[in-house]
Amino acid sequence: MLYMDKYIQKLNSADFANMYGDDFFLTWEKTRDELDAVFIVADALRYLRENNISAKIFDSGLAISLFRDNSTRTRFSFASACNLLGLEVQDLDEGKSQIAHGETVRETANMISFMADVIGIRDDMYIGKGNAYMRQVVKAVKEGARDGILEQRPTLVNLQCDIDHPTQVMADTAHIIREFGGVENLKGKKIAMTWAYSPSYGKPLSVPQGVIGLMTRFGMDVTLAYPEGYEVMSGVEDIARKHAAESGGSFNKTNSMEEAFKDADIVYPKSWAPFKAMEKRTELYGNNNFTGISTLEKELLAQNSTHKNWECTEEMMRLTKGGKALYLHCLPADISGVSCEAGEVSASVFDRYRVPLYKQASFKPYVIAAMIFLSKVRDPQSTLANLETRATLRKIL
Amino acid sequence: MLYMDKYIQKLNSADFANMYGDDFFLTWEKTRDELDAVFIVADALRYLRENNISAKIFDSGLAISLFRDNSTRTRFSFASACNLLGLEVQDLDEGKSQIAHGETVRETANMISFMADVIGIRDDMYIGKGNAYMRQVVKAVKEGARDGILEQRPTLVNLQCDIDHPTQVMADTAHIIREFGGVENLKGKKIAMTWAYSPSYGKPLSVPQGVIGLMTRFGMDVTLAYPEGYEVMSGVEDIARKHAAESGGSFNKTNSMEEAFKDADIVYPKSWAPFKAMEKRTELYGNNNFTGISTLEKELLAQNSTHKNWECTEEMMRLTKGGKALYLHCLPADISGVSCEAGEVSASVFDRYRVPLYKQASFKPYVIAAMIFLSKVRDPQSTLANLETRATLRKIL
Amino acid sequence: MLYMDKYIQKLNSADFANMYGDDFFLTWEKTRDELDAVFIVADALRYLRENNISAKIFDSGLAISLFRDNSTRTRFSFASACNLLGLEVQDLDEGKSQIAHGETVRETANMISFMADVIGIRDDMYIGKGNAYMRQVVKAVKEGARDGILEQRPTLVNLQCDIDHPTQVMADTAHIIREFGGVENLKGKKIAMTWAYSPSYGKPLSVPQGVIGLMTRFGMDVTLAYPEGYEVMSGVEDIARKHAAESGGSFNKTNSMEEAFKDADIVYPKSWAPFKAMEKRTELYGNNNFTGISTLEKELLAQNSTHKNWECTEEMMRLTKGGKALYLHCLPADISGVSCEAGEVSASVFDRYRVPLYKQASFKPYVIAAMIFLSKVRDPQSTLANLETRATLRKIL
Repeated sequence: MLYMDKYIQKLNSADFANMYGDDFFLTWEKTRDELDAVFIVADALRYLRENNISAKIFDSGLAISLFRDNSTRTRFSFASACNLLGLEVQDLDEGKSQIAHGETVRETANMISFMADVIGIRDDMYIGKGNAYMRQVVKAVKEGARDGILEQRPTLVNLQCDIDHPTQVMADTAHIIREFGGVENLKGKKIAMTWAYSPSYGKPLSVPQGVIGLMTRFGMDVTLAYPEGYEVMSGVEDIARKHAAESGGSFNKTNSMEEAFKDADIVYPKSWAPFKAMEKRTELYGNNNFTGISTLEKELLAQNSTHKNWECTEEMMRLTKGGKALYLHCLPADISGVSCEAGEVSASVFDRYRVPLYKQASFKPYVIAAMIFLSKVRDPQSTLANLETRATLRKIL
Repeated sequence: MLYMDKYIQKLNSADFANMYGDDFFLTWEKTRDELDAVFIVADALRYLRENNISAKIFDSGLAISLFRDNSTRTRFSFASACNLLGLEVQDLDEGKSQIAHGETVRETANMISFMADVIGIRDDMYIGKGNAYMRQVVKAVKEGARDGILEQRPTLVNLQCDIDHPTQVMADTAHIIREFGGVENLKGKKIAMTWAYSPSYGKPLSVPQGVIGLMTRFGMDVTLAYPEGYEVMSGVEDIARKHAAESGGSFNKTNSMEEAFKDADIVYPKSWAPFKAMEKRTELYGNNNFTGISTLEKELLAQNSTHKNWECTEEMMRLTKGGKALYLHCLPADISGVSCEAGEVSASVFDRYRVPLYKQASFKPYVIAAMIFLSKVRDPQSTLANLETRATLRKIL
Repeated sequence: MLYMDKYIQKLNSADFANMYGDDFFLTWEKTRDELDAVFIVADALRYLRENNISAKIFDSGLAISLFRDNSTRTRFSFASACNLLGLEVQDLDEGKSQIAHGETVRETANMISFMADVIGIRDDMYIGKGNAYMRQVVKAVKEGARDGILEQRPTLVNLQCDIDHPTQVMADTAHIIREFGGVENLKGKKIAMTWAYSPSYGKPLSVPQGVIGLMTRFGMDVTLAYPEGYEVMSGVEDIARKHAAESGGSFNKTNSMEEAFKDADIVYPKSWAPFKAMEKRTELYGNNNFTGISTLEKELLAQNSTHKNWECTEEMMRLTKGGKALYLHCLPADISGVSCEAGEVSASVFDRYRVPLYKQASFKPYVIAAMIFLSKVRDPQSTLANLETRATLRKIL
C-alpha cells in the first residue's frame, strides 16, 4: 500500500487544475481548494523527506532568487525547497549586475530565465512597488515564452511583497493546522493579530496583511489590534471582511491589545509600521528626499515609543483561552531584555514557545516546494505516487 | 529514428578532434570546422532541452566563474550552460578571497581547481591584461594536472576579455544563422558593425573586435564604421582582412555610419571606447594615476558627445537593405529617451527588434554549453546519440 | 575483484563507530583509529574520483558554509567535498542576513538547517570565540532534531577555529603519509613547526596548534620553535606532551629556528601572532577599543620586525636531514622578494617545493569529504563497495 494514498485521496477531492503553470502572488487570488492543495502537497513532500525518499522532479534547471532586502529564513527556505525538487539556486545579486532602471525589468526578466523554472522575489520595502514589480516580471517571461525566447515559463513565487507574505502565512497556517489537528478544526478559533512595540521603525506590513487575508478563509475569528494610527492597507481589510463573511468566521478590529488577547486560541504579536507612513516614505524615496525620510523615521520611532506597553508578556498571555494560546511569530522577534531593552515579547514567553516557533518556521520550505510542485507538475497525484514507487533514496544510509 | 542523427551527420563532416581537452580563448584560433561544430552542438543541446531530454554529462563536478566586471547576461548564461551539463557553479569572488597579486595566479588557479571541470573568466577592463590572465590560468592548471595535483584539467571558457568576446559573438552568429536559414546563407550578406553614441565612456572593445574577427569567416561583407579616433586594436583588423580574403568576403572601414548602413543585411550599432584611450587608461591605472584617469574620462565623454548623431534611428534603418536589416545588440543598449537622454538607438527601433534581440541573447547558454561539451566529451556524436537514447526526463511532466 | 577491498580491509581493523552522527571539532577529540578512518576514506574517495566513479551518497541536500574570514582554499575545498558527495553548498553570508547577536545563534542555526546535512564554519579571529560558537551551533541543531524541528541533524565540520584547523592539519598529514609511504613510517620522523617572519600581524594560531596537537599522535618528534614571546595556547602544548608520551614520540620547544631545522625530516615554517596578544586583541574588540587595537597592531608589527631572520632560506634547509626535508605550508605563503620584501620563505625554496605544496593542499577536499562520509554513512565499508559496484560515471567520457 502506498503511503502517498492518504495525500492523493485528499487531492482527489480538491479542484486545483488552474495552478498548473500559474504563479503565486497573493493568497486571496487562490481558491480554498487551491490553498488546501498546497497544504496537502507540503505534507506529502515532508513525509517523503522524513522517510528518506527523494522528491526530485527536476534532473537539472535553475531557480532564480532576487532578494531586495536582507533575509535568512526565507533565503534558506527557498534554497531548501528548490534543492528538494532538484533545482539549483542562482542568486540575482543586483549589486553584481548590469541592471539599470525602468525599462529594463522586461529585459532582465528574460535574460535570467533562459533555463529558469522558478523565480523567487522578495521586494517588500516600498508601497505599491513590490507586488507590481513581480507582475512585470511575470508579464515579461510569459511574453518571452510565447515569443520563443524562453524554452520554459518560470513560475513566480512571491517571497514577500508590500501587500502579502504568502510563503510565511501559508507556513503559519500549516503549523496551526498541525497543532489543532486539521484544517477543519480552525473553524471558530480566535486569532489575535496584534501590533507590538519594537525599537525599530519601518517593519513591513506584509505579515499582518497576509494573516488577516488568509486566516479569515478558514472560519476563524480574526481580530486585528493596533494602537491608533497603525492602520494597515484598507483594501486588505476589505478582503478579510469578505472572507470572514464567506467562511462563517469574523473579522474585528480594536485598539486594545487586551481585548484581542482575551480568550484567543492563537496570538501573533508583531511590530509593523503605519501604512500611511510607509506610503509617505515611498514617496519621499521617490523624490530622493533624504532629510524628509530622516525626519519621518524620527517621528515613527517617537510614535512607537509611546506604545511600549504593547508587549506580549506572561500577564497578557494569561488573558488568552485557558492562558494557553499558541504564540506565533515570523522571526526574528524583538525580545525584551535579550535582543533589545523593550520589545515585542518578554523573554519568558518567547522561551516557553521556542520549539513551536521553530516548528512554525520549518513549514516554509515545504510550502514553497508545494507551490512550485503544483505549478510545474501536470498530474500531482500520479507524480506523488511515482515518487514513492521510484523510491530513490535521498541519502544512502 | 534518432532526431540527433541530423546533428550527428553534420558533425561527421567536420574535423574538430583538436577541441577535445582544449580551451576557448579567441574565435580566430579555431578552424571553420571547429566553429561549425560549436553551432551544431549548440543546436543539438537546444533541441534536447526543448524536448525535455536531459543533457547532463556530469554526475558531479564544479564550474568556477570569475567575473572581474559586473555581469547579468553572461553570468546567467554560464550558470545555465553548466547546470544543463550537470556542473555546479562556484563563484570565485575575489573580494572574499585571500588572493594576492602577481605570483599567485598560478597558485590560485590550482587551489580552486581540485574538482573543477570548467573555469569561466570575464576580464575585459584593461588592455593587454584579460586574455593574458586567462592564459596564465590555463598554463597553471595544465601544469597542475601534469604534476598530479589536479585530477582533471579544467577547460577555460573566455567569457569576455580585452581582445574578444567569443561566447557573445558566437551566440550572435548562431542567431543570424537561424535568421538567415543556414550558415551557408551568410555568404555575401553585408553586416555593419558600427560605433554608436553613448553617454558613458570606456565601453569594452571586445564586441566590435570579436565581430570583425568572426563574421569575416563566413564570406560576409563586414563594414566597420566609427568616427575618426575610435579605432579598434589594429591586430584584429589584420585578422579580419585575412579572414575576408580567405572566405571570399570583404572587410571595409569607414567613418560614415550612413555608408555602413547602406544596403546592410545586418546592423550592429554599439558604443565603444577608442583603443588608444583604453591603452592609456590601462597605463594610468598601472601607475595609480587617478587624476590622470579622471582627466581622461572627461576627455572621452567630451569626445563622445561630439558624435551624438551616431544613433540607430528609423531614418538610418531605412538606408539598409529594403529598410529591413536585422538589428543586433549585445545588450543592455543605451536607448534614447528610455535609459538615457540620447543613446545608441532610438526607442522605436529598439522596440521593433526586441523579440529578435532577446532571441539573439538566448543562444549564449547553448554556445557556452557546446564549447564545454566539445572540450570534455571524447566522441560527441555518440554521446549525443546516447543522450537521446537514454532519454532521461529533464523535468517530470 | 573490488579495488575498494584494500580500503575496506583497512577500515575493518579500525574502530570508528562513534563517528557516525558526530561532528569534527578538534583532532584530539578523536581516537587514532578514527583519524586513520578519515585518511583511509579520503584515499578511497580519491581513488573513486581518479577512476571516474561517482561518490555521490546524497541525491539532494544542502551543505551550509559560514566563513567569518576571507578564504579561497578552504572555501573551494569545502565546495568540492560537498559536490563530490552530492550536496549543494549554500553560503550563509552574514552581511545579507538578518542575524542579530547573542541569543540568536540558536535560532539562526535552526533556521538554516531545515534541509542541511552539513554545516562548515570558519571562525578563527577571536580567542575563546570560534570553537565555542561552533559548539553553540551544534547544541542548537541537536536540540532542533530532538524536538522535531529538523528532519536531520547536520554535521559540523570545523573549517578553522581559534584552537585548531583540523581539515588543514589532517590534509597535511595525509600528504606526509603519502610522501613517506604510510602512516607507520611517520614514527621517529622529526617535524619542525616553526614560526617565521611575516610583514603582517595577527595570523591565526590554529595551524601551529593543530600541528603539534595532531603530529604527536604518530610517534613523531615534534619541535615547536618560535622567538621568545610568540607562545601558543598552553593547553594545546599540554595535549601535545600527552600525545607524545602515548605515541612514543616527543614534543620539544625551542627559541632557535636552527635547532628546530637540524636533522628535521619535515619543516613547517609559518608566521603566527603571540597567543597573549590575540587574547588582548579579542578583549579590545569586545570593548570596541579601536585605538587600543591600533596601538597593539603597531606593537605587533614592530615586534615581528625584530625577527626577520626567521626565514626559511636555502641555508636553513641545508640544516635539515640530508638537506632534503619536506617543506610544508598551508598557503598562501609570504615569499621574500615575491609577495613581500622579506617574508616566511625565500623564493628559491618555495619554487623548489611548489608541486609538493600544491599536492599538500589537494588532500583537503578529500579529508573534508571523508569527515562528512564517516558522520553520515552508517556502514562505510559496504557503502564504498556499493559505490564501486554501482559504478556510476562521474563524467561521460
